[in-house]
Amino acid sequence: MLKIEHIGIAVKDIAAAGEIYSAILNTGVYKTETVESEHVITAFLQTGPNKIELLQASSNDSAIAKFIDKKGEGIHHIAFDVADIEAEMTRLKSKGFVLLNETPKRGADNKLVCFVHPKSANGVLVELCQEMQKETQEPRDKN
Amino acid sequence: MLKIEHIGIAVKDIAAAGEIYSAILNTGVYKTETVESEHVITAFLQTGPNKIELLQASSNDSAIAKFIDKKGEGIHHIAFDVADIEAEMTRLKSKGFVLLNETPKRGADNKLVCFVHPKSANGVLVELCQEMQKETQEPRDKN
Repeated sequence: MLKIEHIGIAVKDIAAAGEIYSAILNTGVYKTETVESEHVITAFLQTGPNKIELLQASSNDSAIAKFIDKKGEGIHHIAFDVADIEAEMTRLKSKGFVLLNETPKRGADNKLVCFVHPKSANGVLVELCQEMQKETQEPRDKN
Repeated sequence: MLKIEHIGIAVKDIAAAGEIYSAILNTGVYKTETVESEHVITAFLQTGPNKIELLQASSNDSAIAKFIDKKGEGIHHIAFDVADIEAEMTRLKSKGFVLLNETPKRGADNKLVCFVHPKSANGVLVELCQEMQKETQEPRDKN
């Protein structure tokens, strides 16, 4: 793991939350993006080498809607930047961690992602994410 | 805010959680520390420029014990590194954020800390933390 890539925060109103986190971090939202497959609208803020990802459900089927119904607004996941997501998935599976997807899937912000079951990690939803090369949309060169 | 300094995770058994997060991050716990005033035992792991802080209650009066009773194990807070905690506290108060301590207090890992009320930040407990100079235990030079 290279660093904390971002912290995902589940919110009801992404515009209002964007203003709150802009005030906290003293910087604006630099990107918003809808991820249709996950039924979420996302907004990103930068803080040094790390990001905050605000997440609003775009439908009642969204995991974010269910999370907020159950727990209220708050931190939804922690994402770690990895250089080689498949190698990290193999490493974690070999240590007994339960992965929520067996192959990397495309997430927001030009990333390949994989989630680790919270039961494996003290109630924390852990995401692995690897930056994709912008030109080819393929995983970046591992060399 | 300079970066995410650490993510605090509330756990029941810090030794077991230390093994789990050592496996996830592929690195060991580099420090454990008891903070008597907060009734917590802490363990730290490094991931690039960021840290994971595991928190176990050392008494039933601990905020961590109450958090786990109410919500179960999981992410407890997000801490941002700041260069001048008093200036950041003044800035956030001027924007209407509710601070949980009116003056900086000493936290784990040689830090001055202040917490922002979760009601101000979409259910997220936000911590500001400023590194203290090791020799003097005073706030580091702001210049």
